[in-house]
Amino acid sequence: MTATGTTSADGPGDGGWTAAWELLLPTASAPPRGRGRMLQSALREAVRSGRIAAGTRLPSSRELSADLGVSRGLVTDAYEQLTAEGYLSSARGAGTWVSGAARAVAAAGPTRHPAPEVRRAGFLPGSPDLSLFPRTAWSAAHRRVLAELPHDGLGYPDPCGLAALRAAVAALLTRRRGVVAEPGRVIICSGVAQAMTLLCTVLRTRAPGPGVVAVEDPGSPEHHALIAASGLATAAVPLDAEGMSPRALAAAGARAAVLTPAHQFPSGIAYSARRRTELLDWARAADGLLVEDDYDGDFRYDRAPVGALQGLDPERVAYTGSVSKSLAPGLRLGWLVLPEALVAPVAEVKRTMDLGHPVLDQALLADFITRGDYDRQLRRCQRAYRERRDVLVAELTERYPGTEITGIAAGLHVIARLPARFGPQRRFLAEAGRAGVALRPLDDYTGAPPPPGGAVRLVLGYAHLPPARIREAVRLLPR
Amino acid sequence: MTATGTTSADGPGDGGWTAAWELLLPTASAPPRGRGRMLQSALREAVRSGRIAAGTRLPSSRELSADLGVSRGLVTDAYEQLTAEGYLSSARGAGTWVSGAARAVAAAGPTRHPAPEVRRAGFLPGSPDLSLFPRTAWSAAHRRVLAELPHDGLGYPDPCGLAALRAAVAALLTRRRGVVAEPGRVIICSGVAQAMTLLCTVLRTRAPGPGVVAVEDPGSPEHHALIAASGLATAAVPLDAEGMSPRALAAAGARAAVLTPAHQFPSGIAYSARRRTELLDWARAADGLLVEDDYDGDFRYDRAPVGALQGLDPERVAYTGSVSKSLAPGLRLGWLVLPEALVAPVAEVKRTMDLGHPVLDQALLADFITRGDYDRQLRRCQRAYRERRDVLVAELTERYPGTEITGIAAGLHVIARLPARFGPQRRFLAEAGRAGVALRPLDDYTGAPPPPGGAVRLVLGYAHLPPARIREAVRLLPR
Repeated sequence: MTATGTTSADGPGDGGWTAAWELLLPTASAPPRGRGRMLQSALREAVRSGRIAAGTRLPSSRELSADLGVSRGLVTDAYEQLTAEGYLSSARGAGTWVSGAARAVAAAGPTRHPAPEVRRAGFLPGSPDLSLFPRTAWSAAHRRVLAELPHDGLGYPDPCGLAALRAAVAALLTRRRGVVAEPGRVIICSGVAQAMTLLCTVLRTRAPGPGVVAVEDPGSPEHHALIAASGLATAAVPLDAEGMSPRALAAAGARAAVLTPAHQFPSGIAYSARRRTELLDWARAADGLLVEDDYDGDFRYDRAPVGALQGLDPERVAYTGSVSKSLAPGLRLGWLVLPEALVAPVAEVKRTMDLGHPVLDQALLADFITRGDYDRQLRRCQRAYRERRDVLVAELTERYPGTEITGIAAGLHVIARLPARFGPQRRFLAEAGRAGVALRPLDDYTGAPPPPGGAVRLVLGYAHLPPARIREAVRLLPR
Repeated sequence: MTATGTTSADGPGDGGWTAAWELLLPTASAPPRGRGRMLQSALREAVRSGRIAAGTRLPSSRELSADLGVSRGLVTDAYEQLTAEGYLSSARGAGTWVSGAARAVAAAGPTRHPAPEVRRAGFLPGSPDLSLFPRTAWSAAHRRVLAELPHDGLGYPDPCGLAALRAAVAALLTRRRGVVAEPGRVIICSGVAQAMTLLCTVLRTRAPGPGVVAVEDPGSPEHHALIAASGLATAAVPLDAEGMSPRALAAAGARAAVLTPAHQFPSGIAYSARRRTELLDWARAADGLLVEDDYDGDFRYDRAPVGALQGLDPERVAYTGSVSKSLAPGLRLGWLVLPEALVAPVAEVKRTMDLGHPVLDQALLADFITRGDYDRQLRRCQRAYRERRDVLVAELTERYPGTEITGIAAGLHVIARLPARFGPQRRFLAEAGRAGVALRPLDDYTGAPPPPGGAVRLVLGYAHLPPARIREAVRLLPR
């Protein structure tokens, strides 16, 4: 191993890393498709079991991939995944180390809880501010639901979801997102990940048989991973300034495409009206399905929200969303709004997979939505996140004059392109990492090679950071 | 259609059935593997949409299978499934009709709840008494959890489950069921259905590739359906008085076997010690896996519980259970205790499928178990169910002298074999149905032909019925 580092009370070190080395060796001999998972599992177990202690610095992805004889992307993916799960903490350039959170989970007894979330250390995108979770209202809703639910409501759930929640979600999405959502089209599920698994399982088993699913490039690595895990192939289709290119989509021979039209992840663009029409034309001509992941469509700051693509043709678009950004990812509650022909088959897969969603959680969310608490929560988050976005944009503009910031109209992250004089990106990220600020470059989300010159292009998540933390973190970034 | 009947306020009729007839016709032209699902979906949709009104009597399985040109088992399965889901109500002999519950679900607005459960009309097995759900203690636990959970506990869950719950479940199963359950072996999931889906997905993708999974005959139709939906083949292996026959298991060429050793469903036998050893010998010799579905192992009335098979060899047995019988099926909370080598792959499938289980539900159950509330609930149910069992056995013995009642030591159901003079079974079931008492014959759970003579052999679920209802229902049965 070539990794080096020092251990200190509050930083990464290398103690104990070599003890876990042997666990990772079988990875190279696994079949190619299974290597990524095996590496992730082995690393996770090594952290969980304490074989790699908290604070231990892991080798760089370049070093580990060379040592194991596997691709560097595999190692990067494993590090990213385990970082997202809280086992690892990473700051590009400063390397990756075992987080304190992971140790706390391993050692936790029945009354302990995980240590503070590692994302807070930087601008990694994807998390809302969990301190905004409406505990009092949520608790009150639980009490009401338990007081009112008849005994028989505690039996096996309808695999489509509780009628009350399907109706509440349908009304919510119709009103807020322009979705065509009669309750009969709504399936309650655990979130976008399960929605994709359900849809892919149905696609896999229906005529004309397995096919290719197009994903955005740049795009969410989760889309690719979920589709692949369901046994379907993916094709990365490039974006232009208006959205996914319909010509490239047609050329890919895809039968379905996963899109984020309201606020593309990560680029932040909203799909143009013309592009929406073109993509629907493709779906009608090719008998294709568009899957609309409306992951942060509730947050729009400077003008009215862009309506959901689904509203244009509900028989060609499967719409999915969740409460992960508006309430908390830990609730595992989301929805699918489906073309009529897909409702029964998707419900059947949901039934087989887990016999339907927990009823009390469903009744609780239905109560929460119908009483107006959900709208109140969205307004509260919207105010907080708009302020954070404004602070971030102002701080970046001041510290890096000439920076181009896009994707600011919506969502929980922006894209910042710094003038060339602040690059190269590699050095910038390394210095930020040493200063303790985790950053994710836009290049992480694309299969295409980074442009020449190495300019700094960042995906900056801000929603989880109070304004003071944003100011502090930007000031720690390299000049 | 040849089905006839009359409509009344409280009984089945045939109004509206023909309107739904066309919906079912495509079933016959579907590929054989998809027919069962298609029939179920079409029927479910017909009920949900109101195309078949509540109270409508469906044709007999014989008539419908003949009319559609599909196997009778397919129709029986569809009727059973939709009855379990509450859309249909059935009493063998009296036929199958659309239940009022289904209509209520279809028409429900945000504040309505489903009508009383149809199971209450008879002795259909599988449901606990939902009125025993400990609402006050559950509500208090939710309040405590929300007050104590740190903000970061609301983030994405560990796909293995909350550390606190894994520890609580491990301690509970070690103490109550003799399971070897270090927390590191425990995966939290939504129940036995998801546990089977997770296991089958791992089995399907691992060397030596897909294989046959043995299921008990007689046995739970759910086991077969879940395994088949995961893309694996099943082999029905007959039982003798000690459990699944190891010779027949070996002959089936299975790589895994799903067992209910504590209280076999439906026969009620407990696997003998010798048989447990023989089955483990098979697993070691054939590199096979035993899946122990401990669906009602918590309820044992007359002697100490039979310890879990898993305790004998935790590397050869995957143990699964849930709170569906002890608390409520609607909670969708269960667990898997795995051989060490399966923990990481099963967790990986769980992560892909739904990103882990809802955190508040998990924290709540952990609190509920560690405070002793779960044990209190089990004691309360155990007392209630023992009394109901005693009442049922006494009533049956009085009304049908000479009846052999087995499987009474544990669980939520018994098997009653009536003397031949009360048969034939066909007439008995028909008369019971006309009297409004839903019954399930043992023959429903086996692929083997019923024995000659047509003696009455019933699987009687009693846990959901208060003693007075049991007395009343037995007295309605034919003499």
